[in-house]
Amino acid sequence: MVTIALDMMGSDLGPKELAKGVELFEQKYGDACKLILVGKKEELPEGKHEIEEAQDVLAMETGAMDALRAKTSSMHRAVSLVKEGRAQGVVSCGSTGGFLSIATVVLRKIPGVDRAAFVAPFPTKIKGKPVIILDVGASNENNAKELTQFALLGSLYAKLIYQIEQPKVFLLSNGAEEGKGSPIVKEAYGLLKEDPKINFQGNIEARETLSGDADVIVCDGFTGNILLKASEGVAKTMSGFIKKAFKRNIFSKIGYLLSRKGFKEMSETMDYKNVGGAMLLGVNGVVVKAHGSSDGVAFFHSIEVAYRLLEGKLLEKIKEGLNQDE
Amino acid sequence: MVTIALDMMGSDLGPKELAKGVELFEQKYGDACKLILVGKKEELPEGKHEIEEAQDVLAMETGAMDALRAKTSSMHRAVSLVKEGRAQGVVSCGSTGGFLSIATVVLRKIPGVDRAAFVAPFPTKIKGKPVIILDVGASNENNAKELTQFALLGSLYAKLIYQIEQPKVFLLSNGAEEGKGSPIVKEAYGLLKEDPKINFQGNIEARETLSGDADVIVCDGFTGNILLKASEGVAKTMSGFIKKAFKRNIFSKIGYLLSRKGFKEMSETMDYKNVGGAMLLGVNGVVVKAHGSSDGVAFFHSIEVAYRLLEGKLLEKIKEGLNQDE
Repeated sequence: MVTIALDMMGSDLGPKELAKGVELFEQKYGDACKLILVGKKEELPEGKHEIEEAQDVLAMETGAMDALRAKTSSMHRAVSLVKEGRAQGVVSCGSTGGFLSIATVVLRKIPGVDRAAFVAPFPTKIKGKPVIILDVGASNENNAKELTQFALLGSLYAKLIYQIEQPKVFLLSNGAEEGKGSPIVKEAYGLLKEDPKINFQGNIEARETLSGDADVIVCDGFTGNILLKASEGVAKTMSGFIKKAFKRNIFSKIGYLLSRKGFKEMSETMDYKNVGGAMLLGVNGVVVKAHGSSDGVAFFHSIEVAYRLLEGKLLEKIKEGLNQDE
Repeated sequence: MVTIALDMMGSDLGPKELAKGVELFEQKYGDACKLILVGKKEELPEGKHEIEEAQDVLAMETGAMDALRAKTSSMHRAVSLVKEGRAQGVVSCGSTGGFLSIATVVLRKIPGVDRAAFVAPFPTKIKGKPVIILDVGASNENNAKELTQFALLGSLYAKLIYQIEQPKVFLLSNGAEEGKGSPIVKEAYGLLKEDPKINFQGNIEARETLSGDADVIVCDGFTGNILLKASEGVAKTMSGFIKKAFKRNIFSKIGYLLSRKGFKEMSETMDYKNVGGAMLLGVNGVVVKAHGSSDGVAFFHSIEVAYRLLEGKLLEKIKEGLNQDE
């Protein structure tokens, strides 16, 4: 049976809210998976679950170095449970930079992986069909070889989480044609085209990430961060406009009541929270980063992602995939 | 008096549509500016304007090398008029890659400019307050020194076109704090901080480009392309959802009628066409790229941008600005 360590202190909404997510997970999976709750004992639900006491909480803005030093924090303790073999996976809503550095340093990279990558599922036009994009910010730059490793890691992820047999992999570039892109993208194109393990489909432009054509989109961590945040920024700005448009006066409010069904569908499709947390691929453990403002449902989805990756034996498959290289 | 060469054949909507833009420009500026219309004589308006005959038209998908060879195309002829001294500025709606290569090769870079940059005005949350971003795709990569030159070029542009005395310049990065970013971004941060000619405000995340805080955002051409196209893609997808939501049934259609005023405001604010064409900065001439599907109004705006830059003596000011360096 697999065990997942949960940092219960990381969400802006507090451990009581996260406990609802634990409850939901339990209702669905029962005894199939063991959970260890890490945090302040007095704020955690009593009873069913093993509790790992940790009195300190990392602030959301904690930097990498401070996070590494804060060994008594709930986040550091939760990751360490994986290191110690008491759990195989860990979920936290806390500081992204802190989680990244603790997970990379404590768990170390899988041999053959040069850089760990943050994977984020992105919504697309097609409801219920996310595209997974990596790296979205674990690195500040990546070389061509690292991009091909991301393609493999992303393919395995898509296969395990979305049951796609031959995930279609694209390379993010400034033009769809072969020969477009930065020098590193061009080099990666050549490597990916020759790689029999990757179902490589060529370049994709940033405009097409939402089209639903791609299962996996590969890019360096700096570019992935720009893509993710530009998309979130525009989506948020337009949602703001929509709210304002409907609140304008009594007529527009009635207008909302008459048309809200379609808008609800849009906000569900475009909701970056609905598609689950980001996952750090390439380290020795299943590491899932839930949103900082996760509610119970979002936390449940993140625990579920961790559970599926463990059940699907992600780590073993990554190791196998990398070894075929040699 | 300044003269602008107009490639009349580049728009998807044809020369008759572009002629409306010429008409609008003339109504506003009269004899203050001379226009030379380049294209197929039989499709151009007769009378008032000098016509430069060019029987060939570059297809929208023409690549850089083919564009350079097509010396009898309307685009190549229009750019050459600047080279020959018969005009000081040129506007085209045709192939971006083709225009970029012809303009760079025929007009050459201003001494002291290492790379030309495409500048695109971007809408922000604040109506009528665009932010200008460069480079959005002239280069596939840029070094730190080139990024500082972009900061200077962008500041001059913002000053001349938007009358901002001390344009606030930000560097696009994956985090707002100093020390965040790719190695090149970090190096550029150091150079910009020390540059007395730049009103440098630090890093900005892609999420904040629409906030209206920045007047100028600097990035390499690859990243700028990702930013521009990701933003356009999300905006287009959400607009599609909104249309669908309102068309759902008779109630939602009434809903639209009751709330359309706010939505009209949104689409005007978020319309990438309204903010005018992209401009190639750093070559010996004022080079404005209008949208490929420009209508008369869009073409008018692009001619106006070229005119203002010429009246504001952009080239002379860039040369001055670069010389202060030495």
